[in-house]
Order: sequence, then structure tokens, then C-alpha cells
Amino acid sequence: MEGSGHGPSHPLSGFPEWLPAQRIVEKRAIEIISRTFELHGFASVATRAVEPLRELLRKGETSKEVYVLQRLHADPGAAAGDDDLGLHFDLTVPFARYVLEHAGHLTFPFKRYQVQPVWRGERPQDGRFREFYQADIDIVGDGELPAHYEVDVPLVAAEALTALAEIGLPPVRVLVNNRVVADAYYRGIGLPDVPGVLQAVDKLAKIGPDGVGALLRSELGADDDQVAACLALADLSGGVEVVEQVRALAARYGVTGPEAVDLEVGLASLTALLVQAETRAPGVVVADLSIARGLDYYTGAVYETVLVGHEKLGSICSGGRYDSLATDGSRTFPGVGISIGLSRVLSRLFSAGLVTASRSVPTAVLVAVTDEDSRAASDAVATRLRARGIPCDVAPAAAKFGKQIRFADRRGIPFVWFPGADGEADAVKDIRSGEQVEADADVWTPPEADLWPRAVPTTTDA
Amino acid sequence: MEGSGHGPSHPLSGFPEWLPAQRIVEKRAIEIISRTFELHGFASVATRAVEPLRELLRKGETSKEVYVLQRLHADPGAAAGDDDLGLHFDLTVPFARYVLEHAGHLTFPFKRYQVQPVWRGERPQDGRFREFYQADIDIVGDGELPAHYEVDVPLVAAEALTALAEIGLPPVRVLVNNRVVADAYYRGIGLPDVPGVLQAVDKLAKIGPDGVGALLRSELGADDDQVAACLALADLSGGVEVVEQVRALAARYGVTGPEAVDLEVGLASLTALLVQAETRAPGVVVADLSIARGLDYYTGAVYETVLVGHEKLGSICSGGRYDSLATDGSRTFPGVGISIGLSRVLSRLFSAGLVTASRSVPTAVLVAVTDEDSRAASDAVATRLRARGIPCDVAPAAAKFGKQIRFADRRGIPFVWFPGADGEADAVKDIRSGEQVEADADVWTPPEADLWPRAVPTTTDA
Repeated sequence: MEGSGHGPSHPLSGFPEWLPAQRIVEKRAIEIISRTFELHGFASVATRAVEPLRELLRKGETSKEVYVLQRLHADPGAAAGDDDLGLHFDLTVPFARYVLEHAGHLTFPFKRYQVQPVWRGERPQDGRFREFYQADIDIVGDGELPAHYEVDVPLVAAEALTALAEIGLPPVRVLVNNRVVADAYYRGIGLPDVPGVLQAVDKLAKIGPDGVGALLRSELGADDDQVAACLALADLSGGVEVVEQVRALAARYGVTGPEAVDLEVGLASLTALLVQAETRAPGVVVADLSIARGLDYYTGAVYETVLVGHEKLGSICSGGRYDSLATDGSRTFPGVGISIGLSRVLSRLFSAGLVTASRSVPTAVLVAVTDEDSRAASDAVATRLRARGIPCDVAPAAAKFGKQIRFADRRGIPFVWFPGADGEADAVKDIRSGEQVEADADVWTPPEADLWPRAVPTTTDA
Repeated sequence: MEGSGHGPSHPLSGFPEWLPAQRIVEKRAIEIISRTFELHGFASVATRAVEPLRELLRKGETSKEVYVLQRLHADPGAAAGDDDLGLHFDLTVPFARYVLEHAGHLTFPFKRYQVQPVWRGERPQDGRFREFYQADIDIVGDGELPAHYEVDVPLVAAEALTALAEIGLPPVRVLVNNRVVADAYYRGIGLPDVPGVLQAVDKLAKIGPDGVGALLRSELGADDDQVAACLALADLSGGVEVVEQVRALAARYGVTGPEAVDLEVGLASLTALLVQAETRAPGVVVADLSIARGLDYYTGAVYETVLVGHEKLGSICSGGRYDSLATDGSRTFPGVGISIGLSRVLSRLFSAGLVTASRSVPTAVLVAVTDEDSRAASDAVATRLRARGIPCDVAPAAAKFGKQIRFADRRGIPFVWFPGADGEADAVKDIRSGEQVEADADVWTPPEADLWPRAVPTTTDA
């Protein structure tokens, strides 16, 4: 009989895996996020893990390193082509394909959420995740999509993240910008390669204003005035007052004509987002004109989200509006969506010690076994407790009670149940306080706080 | 702006994907199964999707076609070796690796459950699933594992499957056998290649007794008596009375000496399983001496499970005991586990029309919008309802109320809320009955049955 390992395994870099107590936190986080999404009417969707390579590579996303699949026992003569599959690198591409494939069975506007792993074939030495969970929402219309959804999406995401305070997550701030504003402004100052400018500005946090300036000069031929105009725009952040500041900059740097008209369209949209967000969730949404988002398919609002006090972590939740999420040639589906980097959030919660699980198992009660001949009596107690929704386990062996209590203690199980011998009453012991009381398995219930394991903010009391 | 599809997509054979209403059923099934596992003290574990190829191929499972990963942009000069990864084809191999890798942080016996997709590179034309969800439980010990867990595991799985009656699943029957019995019996009648015999017997349902007999003759050199002995054993099924029938067959076909002693060990274990199961869950567990399980790592109890009335579907839940789930050379971890074929179960529920979701969205209430200028008032109603845990959505546009009601109706949303104009009271309409009542968003609550979408058995009333 051969075992499945010949030596101690080593963790695979980039593929995070949680211990049972951490998994309790992860499950709770997914529950909280999913419930928030469902309260807002988003339907759950799960897509397959694989897509045809032609779908994955359609947007030329060569920077997202795709994992390609090959059957180990592929027929040597089999044609490749249609059957070339890769793992999805985000949840947007598979959702766009899902919408097209099932459009006849969906009702629009269609609001969906999706919590699944994604894979990116990063170089292992980069120390980046190669498998991680995302939690996405998108709203997609058939032909048209009302602008008010650009307000809903970041607010729903912020509500979900704010609800994670229950498990120790610090507050979040959603940073918003608008592609129409950026597009009109850059064209208006004489830089028509808007995607190029956005890619340069997107590097601001990494290479600083001087670096971005140098890039704009070398890659786009920008002059001093244009560089100053770009950096001045990227420097703006705050409440709805930024709208007036953008206007002032546009006037100073000579944005006129059709670009000035387009700029007003974008600013109206940005104003509506900021005003409505401030009414519905004061202090959560902030304008930040440096938000560029590298991807070229956004056409309206764009979002990034920082964890207050952990800004260096980068955005934990990003997205935006796109006029064409998917199209089959005759129908076009515009959308707006946002993606929570669930693994990134959890990883920070764990590494910063912000969250603690109350135990490592679901079990609230360990039923002790007096001797192996009476195991059936202990099983019967467990059955009665479970019938009333109390998670319990029966001791693995009829060891000394001290050892059985240690079994519970090592897992954080709060209660040990002792079946009474020969008509005596049963007893249950809270092994934290040592308090023991007589109990009836059809009646006794643990305190609500002990019934299921909980994930709670780590207390920092001395 | 390029969309992500140029023509209608075609479903990818072998990768099932559910519509939103079906996904509600799937989510509910996972909830029910997970809750049962947790009530029995199983901790949730999620492993990464990939394993090193050397782990996946260790047991020579060439019949499980492995999907190998390749980075699209792999460095041409990069060494392969350690970095060769494949998608897991079951949840047992990754769990064994998880146990070895994290043994220092786990407490044994360790009970875990795991609900995740697995991948098998089947030939597409076989019409078999290439991606599907399994729901596994395993109990693993450090060095030793008490025999009573061989009783717990099939009963917990049966309890989970029985609870799925809530969503229309027919009753299940767990068929059990014991490898020690089979091993002693086959050796005792003079067929020492036990794995070979098991592989032949495993084909009984597919090729019939004559086919199995022919295989035993051609592959293992069995004579008429030996073939008769094998087929007679495989023909036994029922309650604990089969134990005596096995003894009679063993006597008739000349099982003596050490094999007779081993047989009694196996029969004692089978008896204990049947007797205890009958006490704890009458009628669920049945002995079936034809259950072979192709895999050679089982060493004690083995299980298969059929859906009553859908026996042709094959086993929906299989597993067994293995003395060495994992080993690092110095420590050995025995285990017992079982795996529910969740996608297989759901696929049958859908194709047989056994289950119906009460609606396709989480939304219980659609808040109507009188005109776009008063959208904020509708948003405010929705916020008050959500604060009390009522899932709701706001109409996408201030269309005529008839159109807004049809929006709700097409999704199965039971209630439409009309904000009152100018100090008038709000009203809520049950669009199924047409009944409309005055309502306050801080007080009104839908009936419990309407609060969240439900998955229920399809009623077949005329």
C-alpha cells in the first residue's frame, strides 16, 4: 500500500491555502459579502474555470499570463483549435461569455455576483498570487444601461467591505474617476493617445510624478505644458469640489471646442456619482483624478478602493463602466462592475493579525465516551443535540476524561458532555470556566455566541 | 471598443453551467450538505486547484486523465521539473498532500469536509463531465484510526443526502462491502491477484455475470469453480444475514487456514457496520458483496450509494477506508472518507425536473420608481427594507407601473412597492394575488416563505 507522499511537502509559491481556523474566517467573509450582494438583488452565478483561449486572448491581455490546459493523454493526432482551453484570469471574461451564451434565458438588466478563484501564470519569483479568489458584481443591460447603476455598484461593494468590520477589516475608501473626463481632458490638451496617457498615469504610485513626466515625454512626445497639465489633473482629489477644479485646469491648459463639451458630459456624470454617493453613504466615496485603470475597455466611471491605514496594499476592489461588456455583432451588452480581491483582503487580515477565529472546528460540544461498550449512548446524545442544530462530535476513544477534555481544549471546543451512567443525569462542562451542570440533551442549549465558531476582530487589550 | 464575443457562443461539452434559478438550487444543496457535515464536527478545508504532477500521478492513476498546465508566456529557458502542475482530478489527493504539508498545525483525528470542483481530461465525445463539483468528508488519524469511524462516514453522507429531500432528491441507499472480506475470500479460493479480481467484478453492472466470468478466465486463469465462487459472492446483498451467507460460500468453496481467519476479521468489521448502521439509520445501509471499487488503496469498508429509482445513474457517493491516506516515511495517516458527486446529483435533479426554484433572483421586493426625479425616494425605501434583511431591488427605469410590474413578474419577484407621493402612505402589492396594502418600510415584512428564494420539490399535481 503506497502513501501519497514520500517526504514533507513544500508550499507552492503563489497558491495560498488556509488552515481550518483561517478557513472559518474565509467562509464568514464570503457569507457576509454574498448576503450584501443578495440584499441588493444580485443573483449568484458560477462559471466553469476554463474558457477557449481565443476568448481569453481576445483583448490582447498579454500581461495577464494565462495558464493553458493540455490533456496528459491527448490523442496525438487530435486537432487543436477549438479545444484549446485556458484557466480564466478574471471573472469578467467568463461572465461576458456567459451572458452571450445564455442571453435567451436571462432577463436584463441582469445583476449577478460571482465568488470564484482565478488563475494567473505569474512568474513564481514575483511572490504574487497565482490562484486567488475574487468576488465580483456586474450589472449588464441589453443595448442600454441606465447611468444610475454607476452609483449603485461602488456603494454596494463598499457596503460589503464595510460589513467585514465584523471580522476585523479596517474602513475602506472608494476612489472614483471618469473616463469621459480623462479622455476629453487629454485630447483637449493635445495628447490624442489617451490609452497611452492612462498607462503612464497608472504608474504614478510606482514611479512618482517625475517618472510619469518622463514617460509622457518619451512615449507620447508630451511637452512641458502637457506634462504639467497631466500631473495637475492627477493631483486632484476630494469631494464634489474637484469638479470645479477640473474645469479650472481645463481652462488654464486650453481645453476648448468639442473636447470642452465632452468634458462637461463627463463632469456631469462624476458630479452625479459624488453627490448621490455622499447622500447614501457619507464619506465613503472620494474623487481621485489619478485613478486611470490600465484596461482600455472602461468608458465611464472607474473605481479603486483602498483600506484605510493599509494604502500601500494597493486597490482591494476595482472596476468601472464599459459600454460593451459583450457583443455578438447584432446585440451589444453594456455593463458596470467591480471586483473585490478577496484573497488579498484575507491575506492582509491574517498577516496583520486583525482577525481571530473562536475555534478551529465547527463543534460546540464534545460528547465524552465512558467506555467503548457505551459508545452507542454517546452517539445517541450527539444525535439528540444535532437534531436541535447543535454541532457536536463524539470522542475518538474512551480515554481518561482528562485526555478527552484536552482533545476538546486543543480544538477550542467549549463544552464537554458526560453521559450519566445507570440512570444518572448527564452533565455538561464549560471547560473554559470549569463550571459543570446537569443537562438533558433534548433541552440544553449552548449560549448563542458559542453555538458556531465566530470570526472576530483580534482584541488588543493587554 | 471591442466586445468579448464575435458570434453566439456554444456550450463547451463536459463543462456544465447553471442558469441563475438552477444556481439557487446548487447553492442550497451545498448549504444543506455543509451544514450536515458541520453538525458532525467536520471542519471546512479548501485546497488549491493545482498539484505537482508527481503527486497527481503517484498512484499510477493513468485512467484519470489529468489536465496539465502551461504558462502561455513561460520563459523559454525555464526548467520544468518542480514547476510541472496539473489540475486535481479528485479531492483526496490534494487533501492527503494538505495533511502532510500542514500536519504540524492540525489536530488528529482530523475531520474535514471539502466542496470544490475537480477536473478530468476526458475525451469530449464521451459526453462525460470534465469539470464537476464533489463534496467530500474524510477522517484521518495520525498512526491509527478507530474502526468506529467506518460506521460514521457513510451515515453522515446518507444524512446529508437524505436532507436533500428538501430540494426533491429521492431517498438513497448506501451499499457497503469490506475489502478484508473480499481479499480473504479471493485468496482463499485460489485467486491471489485480488486487484485483478476486483477490477473484473467492478464491471459486473456493465458486462454482466457472463462477461465477468470470461474476464476472470482470460485475465486471471480462473476455473469454473472459481468463477462460480466469485459470482456467488457478488450475488449476495441484504442485511446482516449476508454475513452467514458469506461464511457458507467460503465453506462451500474451500476457504480455510489463514484466509478463513482473515475472512472472520473482515466479517466482524462488516457485521459491526451493518448492526450499528441499522440502529442509527434503519434501512439506509445495505450489504452488497459486488461492490468492488476499482481503486487499489482501500483496505477496509468500501461504499457506494444509489438513488432509489435512479439506480442506472450509478453511484452518487463512494468511498472507503485506506490504511495509508498519506505518509512522509516516518508517519502514516490512515483515513476513511466518502465523496458525494454533487454535479451528478444536481444534473439528475434538473434533467428529471424534480426541483423548482421559487424565483431566479434573491429579490423579494421590487421598489417601483414613480419618476426619475424621485429615484432617491425609492432608493431610500430599499435601504430601509435591506436594513431589516429584506432583499430588494429598485426598478431600472421610471417606466409605466405596468411595465415595472412585468419586470418583477418575469423574475418571480413576489412584491412590488409603490412609494407614496406627497406624504401619502406607501403601498405594497403581492403581484401573484393582486392584493395591495398600505405599508411602512420600517415595519412591513414579507411572509417567511417569500423572504428568500427557495428550492422545492416539483409538485406533480394535475
